[in-house]
Amino acid sequence: MQIPACYDDAMSRKYPEQVVLVIARDSTGKCNPMAAGWVMIASSQPPMMAVALGTARHTLEAIGHSREFVISFPGEGMAEDTLYYGTVSGRDEDKLAVRRARTQSAEKIECVLLSDAVASFECALEGEMPAGDHVIVVGRVVASHVNSDAGLRRLFNLGERNLQPLPVR
Amino acid sequence: MQIPACYDDAMSRKYPEQVVLVIARDSTGKCNPMAAGWVMIASSQPPMMAVALGTARHTLEAIGHSREFVISFPGEGMAEDTLYYGTVSGRDEDKLAVRRARTQSAEKIECVLLSDAVASFECALEGEMPAGDHVIVVGRVVASHVNSDAGLRRLFNLGERNLQPLPVR
Repeated sequence: MQIPACYDDAMSRKYPEQVVLVIARDSTGKCNPMAAGWVMIASSQPPMMAVALGTARHTLEAIGHSREFVISFPGEGMAEDTLYYGTVSGRDEDKLAVRRARTQSAEKIECVLLSDAVASFECALEGEMPAGDHVIVVGRVVASHVNSDAGLRRLFNLGERNLQPLPVR
Repeated sequence: MQIPACYDDAMSRKYPEQVVLVIARDSTGKCNPMAAGWVMIASSQPPMMAVALGTARHTLEAIGHSREFVISFPGEGMAEDTLYYGTVSGRDEDKLAVRRARTQSAEKIECVLLSDAVASFECALEGEMPAGDHVIVVGRVVASHVNSDAGLRRLFNLGERNLQPLPVR
């Protein structure tokens, strides 16, 4: 039976939640990764993805500037990096340098890919829509990549900053 | 290392993917559930959720009519129902009647809740944004519910129509 609950209690039943990294080039030319869980596929043809970004986020400002970004599925070895990318602002630090992240150039946009990701999607900004204290950013996927290790698993958020790979199939 | 891939191959690394049911009242007054995986939280304050619906979907038409909908997290006993709700159109069948689904009235909107869901969110339509062959529908959460069984697990899509609960924490 369904019983009334406050929103936060009801939403705490969502886990495990996916986690992605959104990488965007800011106005200083620095590529900055941010962890995000509020992301979805938005279209099949052409392929598009959407991510909800807080209105005050450095990443939202960066995408407004460069009008392109990468969405990465972090690999199972990236839990500590991903927590860091989700708690520190790119306004304050060069996050990829601090974490000595392994990167490589994107193919179709001026950005970087994380070499240890499970998959990466290069996106061209297609549109934005305000939603409360966030903005929904929609990107058209212009290039896709996978890890050369086909068995690498994605990280998911099991709640309370506990990032783990999950079994598939 | 990241290596170029076609979009479908890269996106096949996404699993496990969440699955929700979107329930909307159509112009005949019938409440119709549809399975969807392309859904996210879009705002904290006020709480909002977004779901991408194919432009031809009965559910998109129904939401355009009633301007409100429910998002449900299906419970672990609902795998067969959820697959059915994802493959049959509400234009052709009264899906809740066919499955003899246990329902109860929503609290703030004219719709139904699925009694066996893990959690349910009643939403008032806030806005829509076209995205390729889909439309992103944004709803403001006006009431939330949880199952009286606090241990009930959510279903996830492990790929190839394999819906399973997953471990949390």
